[in-house]
Amino acid sequence: MFRPAWRSLALASRLPPPLARKIPTRLYTTDPEPTKSSSATYIQTTKTFAKVTGLLGLSSAVGILVVGAAILAHDAFTYNEKHVDRVPVNPLALHPERGGPKNLPVARILVDDEEDEEAKLLATKPRLVIVGGGWGAMGVLESLHPGDYHVTVVSTDTYTTFTPLLPSAAVGTVSVRSLIEPIRKLLARLRGHFVQGKAVDLVMSERLVEISTVAPDGTNSNFYIPYDKIVIAVGSSSSTHGVPGLENCFQLKTIGDAQAIRRRIMDNFEIASLPTTSPEERRRLLSFVVCGGGPTGVETAAEIYDFCQEDIMNYASIVTRMEDIFPKICRKEVSIHVIQSREHILNTEKFRRDEVDLITSARVAGVTSDHVLYTTRNANGETEQHSIPTNFVLWSTGIAMNPFTQRVSSLLPNQVHKKAIEVDSHLRVNGAPVGDVYAIGDCATIETSLLSHFMELVDDADEDKNGKIDFGEWEHMVTKIKERIPMAEDHLVKVKELFQLYDSDADDSLSLNELFKLLEEIGNRITSLPATAQVASQQGKYLGKKLHKLSRTSAPVSSSTPAASGNAAAIHLLSDEAVSKPFKYFHLGTLAYIGNAAVFDFGKYSFMGGLVAMYAWRSIYWNEQVSARTRALLMIDWIVRGIWGRDLSRI
Amino acid sequence: MFRPAWRSLALASRLPPPLARKIPTRLYTTDPEPTKSSSATYIQTTKTFAKVTGLLGLSSAVGILVVGAAILAHDAFTYNEKHVDRVPVNPLALHPERGGPKNLPVARILVDDEEDEEAKLLATKPRLVIVGGGWGAMGVLESLHPGDYHVTVVSTDTYTTFTPLLPSAAVGTVSVRSLIEPIRKLLARLRGHFVQGKAVDLVMSERLVEISTVAPDGTNSNFYIPYDKIVIAVGSSSSTHGVPGLENCFQLKTIGDAQAIRRRIMDNFEIASLPTTSPEERRRLLSFVVCGGGPTGVETAAEIYDFCQEDIMNYASIVTRMEDIFPKICRKEVSIHVIQSREHILNTEKFRRDEVDLITSARVAGVTSDHVLYTTRNANGETEQHSIPTNFVLWSTGIAMNPFTQRVSSLLPNQVHKKAIEVDSHLRVNGAPVGDVYAIGDCATIETSLLSHFMELVDDADEDKNGKIDFGEWEHMVTKIKERIPMAEDHLVKVKELFQLYDSDADDSLSLNELFKLLEEIGNRITSLPATAQVASQQGKYLGKKLHKLSRTSAPVSSSTPAASGNAAAIHLLSDEAVSKPFKYFHLGTLAYIGNAAVFDFGKYSFMGGLVAMYAWRSIYWNEQVSARTRALLMIDWIVRGIWGRDLSRI
Repeated sequence: MFRPAWRSLALASRLPPPLARKIPTRLYTTDPEPTKSSSATYIQTTKTFAKVTGLLGLSSAVGILVVGAAILAHDAFTYNEKHVDRVPVNPLALHPERGGPKNLPVARILVDDEEDEEAKLLATKPRLVIVGGGWGAMGVLESLHPGDYHVTVVSTDTYTTFTPLLPSAAVGTVSVRSLIEPIRKLLARLRGHFVQGKAVDLVMSERLVEISTVAPDGTNSNFYIPYDKIVIAVGSSSSTHGVPGLENCFQLKTIGDAQAIRRRIMDNFEIASLPTTSPEERRRLLSFVVCGGGPTGVETAAEIYDFCQEDIMNYASIVTRMEDIFPKICRKEVSIHVIQSREHILNTEKFRRDEVDLITSARVAGVTSDHVLYTTRNANGETEQHSIPTNFVLWSTGIAMNPFTQRVSSLLPNQVHKKAIEVDSHLRVNGAPVGDVYAIGDCATIETSLLSHFMELVDDADEDKNGKIDFGEWEHMVTKIKERIPMAEDHLVKVKELFQLYDSDADDSLSLNELFKLLEEIGNRITSLPATAQVASQQGKYLGKKLHKLSRTSAPVSSSTPAASGNAAAIHLLSDEAVSKPFKYFHLGTLAYIGNAAVFDFGKYSFMGGLVAMYAWRSIYWNEQVSARTRALLMIDWIVRGIWGRDLSRI
Repeated sequence: MFRPAWRSLALASRLPPPLARKIPTRLYTTDPEPTKSSSATYIQTTKTFAKVTGLLGLSSAVGILVVGAAILAHDAFTYNEKHVDRVPVNPLALHPERGGPKNLPVARILVDDEEDEEAKLLATKPRLVIVGGGWGAMGVLESLHPGDYHVTVVSTDTYTTFTPLLPSAAVGTVSVRSLIEPIRKLLARLRGHFVQGKAVDLVMSERLVEISTVAPDGTNSNFYIPYDKIVIAVGSSSSTHGVPGLENCFQLKTIGDAQAIRRRIMDNFEIASLPTTSPEERRRLLSFVVCGGGPTGVETAAEIYDFCQEDIMNYASIVTRMEDIFPKICRKEVSIHVIQSREHILNTEKFRRDEVDLITSARVAGVTSDHVLYTTRNANGETEQHSIPTNFVLWSTGIAMNPFTQRVSSLLPNQVHKKAIEVDSHLRVNGAPVGDVYAIGDCATIETSLLSHFMELVDDADEDKNGKIDFGEWEHMVTKIKERIPMAEDHLVKVKELFQLYDSDADDSLSLNELFKLLEEIGNRITSLPATAQVASQQGKYLGKKLHKLSRTSAPVSSSTPAASGNAAAIHLLSDEAVSKPFKYFHLGTLAYIGNAAVFDFGKYSFMGGLVAMYAWRSIYWNEQVSARTRALLMIDWIVRGIWGRDLSRI
């Protein structure tokens, strides 16, 4: 009963606005005399303003009443008592059988697989297991349809996180609650299952994934989940670059990280304000160091800067005048440093103006509990060592494989990539049984080598089977390459020039040697996709759509009986190629918040502005949110920040 | 510039509503034909509804635009750059001198005492130190005026907590952020100082309080803060009643407690849903035990019950249909137990109906990591032992002194109370230098013994100095007692009857022996005030008003120079009695949330209802909030709960 009211609110904004048209009429008719002097104009303007705000204020009040009434009605229906009498549960779900190479319990039937008719039907569908709960995993869930699969999500956190706003959460611009959405709620549409645990091993021959969970007493308990298809979307760890002392650093990958950073920043300011803190210690406590000039590092530095400028010091309240919250000496002694190995940092100018200390072409040599060591090269090429006393270091440089990804990679001999699992352009893990194992997001990298397909490409293109590729065959081959590896497209533009360039003996055809060199060179030129939320999300949505098509183009074969499930012969789905093109990434532009302003970078066009950019930035992120709830909460956070400033509590 | 718009919003609700009057006119004029059939009526009603919601929806949209525009304007002014050039700091503030019995640093001058002219003036005022950051402390801050004192608040948490809603926060009905307000923000009005630390000792002869703070490396660092007046408002610990194993229990006194409880509840449901969890373990994980049938215990049990009924199981979304979030078996096996030593629990009937297991007249014998032991007496008076397997125990019974209160109490030989510091009716700590040390809230109890004033009362009343009190003298004495100890009032109603009852020799006068017995009996009858937020808040406000009056009725004497501060001779304030009456508590009723309903208990009248009571309950708490920010956040939480249910994330 709440839905119609809500919908009409949304519809109302599209209706012609009779009220808006009424306002000017009223304003002029109630003021019959024309204005005569500037003073009169002023008074009239003031009156007009008062009337407008009065009317608008009234309309807000009415709006609030409507919302209130709707909630009352909603509450009246949801606040009631429900009782559960009998819940049918399969005995095998209560006491699972053991199996697999380690003879662990195998969760073939779950406790809710027989609780109603819908659940029973779903239990006959192919089993899709998604490992991870980030952008990639949520992208898959979003594109699936109810009834496609028996879906299980395995993740260490029970919620998914809107990671691009973690820097904002770290200083309290937005509350952490606004950035998360329970995975169980997102799964509800698909009647999916959730397991809070960590994937530790994969048994591809038996289609089992080993999950480790933590019991109430803190001990680990492992079991297998059978799958017909598995999606690995576990993200990445931070790259250490072999720097010692990283245990003294913060990362910013999870909500827990953001909360820990917030606590440390507030602690530093509180301890800096204590009467017994020495001037040297105060400077150290108020020195914030960010290692890494990527988007996360830059945005966190910008957020810390704004936080210090706007909230720590001048608390602008709508009730009282501007007040000092911490002693002024604290504000004077705040320093923010960004250490970066490359020469340039996103939007250097803005930072320079804001007195953030930018240290470029530098290498972090070590981090201790009270300072950061880094080296630079002077004009003579000699290495110079520097040290910054600090009590806050954020480590935000590059990605590395986490233990599960490393394990999967080690199981497959042709996996040689050091930072991620290599997948083909259909996002299938190279070397794994075809169509069983997918990997997306930060933990995956799409193969860019054309050479691994060399013989197939030649066989397909060489129509006259003369062992040489003429220009017509080369054009055919280019089409095939673009189909299979869309990322090669940008490097296959000037087809004729390429052909002539590598046709070293100028016989108007490419020998296999010449072709090999050509494809090797192109493969080297393809850059892998960046480890961003945008890539992961697009890959997830792509894969979800494909999995949906696969499920609808094949006869559903029961996999719920212990004998059939996890058995390669039981499922007959069409191949990925039959239902879908390879994954293609569409770059929608990157944007970074860099302190009361945002930088948009849409490929060729880049745009930077103050307030306008900031609002555009906010609205874009607002629309990317996973649910209406987080969207509303985020808007509320920004309004609350606007009125009362950032949250200063250390909780 | 945001203020006028905000104010006009508030004013608008008091204006005659032209819009509201317009709505019915429009509705009737656009529908010229009178209704003829029930079907026509239905259509018309639907149309009317659509128009009303359309109009109201539009008005909400306009309201949101106004708020948006105001925030844009506000942001435009607050998002700017500020620079601090020179901050004057006294060298003694940077390197404090040592002193006191332990030769610790003494914080006589703070780093912000000379940062501007206002700070310099405040540094000459008497020093008021408030230890604690709860209801009592905030009550004092609220009633003080800027310029009265050089105020310092010492608290282990940087924020004050709206404690009555902690049970709601523990299950996610409201977010913890909505229940807290930074103490620094509340201090800003008074230009006060905040020290994050713990009071550990009091040196009354030198007027120094010893504070212990934690350095970044985790070590403790102690120093003295000098005071002219100190207010002890540190609250209480939980009473253990000598029960073993309380380290396995949760408490619910802080935001941290609420967050830990939330995590445990979510963990229990997640582990209960794992495929490898045995049926016995699942039942244990879903069994929630509350020890103590007071308001906190009852409200937490009710909130857990509602959470399980409404959110864990049936997730009512406005976007999708009712969905199951956890397997139905979990809901079936949830059990909630309240163990209580007394026979009755607030609103037993409601709980009985809701299938909460009430265990009355029982004594908890011990708590282990996986079960609770308790004993009852059977009909024959024999003790029977019982055990409840559980993974969640809330300990919520009675109060005890915390270490600082114990230390203060031990310094004063006439302090004999076991649970709190005894204060006189002016809230001055008994035995401490008069007018220097106050105690309020849970850590204080007002003396109820009339005998300690026996000789003074007799001297004052016995006009003819004959060593006997006649009825006229008795009436005079009653007036004096009521003035000095307002809590005795209820027991001094039938003055004549009392006089005759204790005049055992019927000589129309009371001998000193007879009078002693009378006053002893009345003293025993006075019950001490309950340890509630209401009492603490009233005491704080009372004390703040009195301290304000004291500061205005005396010549301000500088206490900022090291020689003068902390010196009893330096300050000459009038006595408490000269400016204020003793503290008198006004009971404003208690209310408890007991699961989608609230119980109001206004002394003689008690009232319980469903939805209406719940909304009344919410609105009352809403108005008690410390700031407009938390008030708005709390309203938002309730709206969000109404639309999207409670927050299920385990963070």
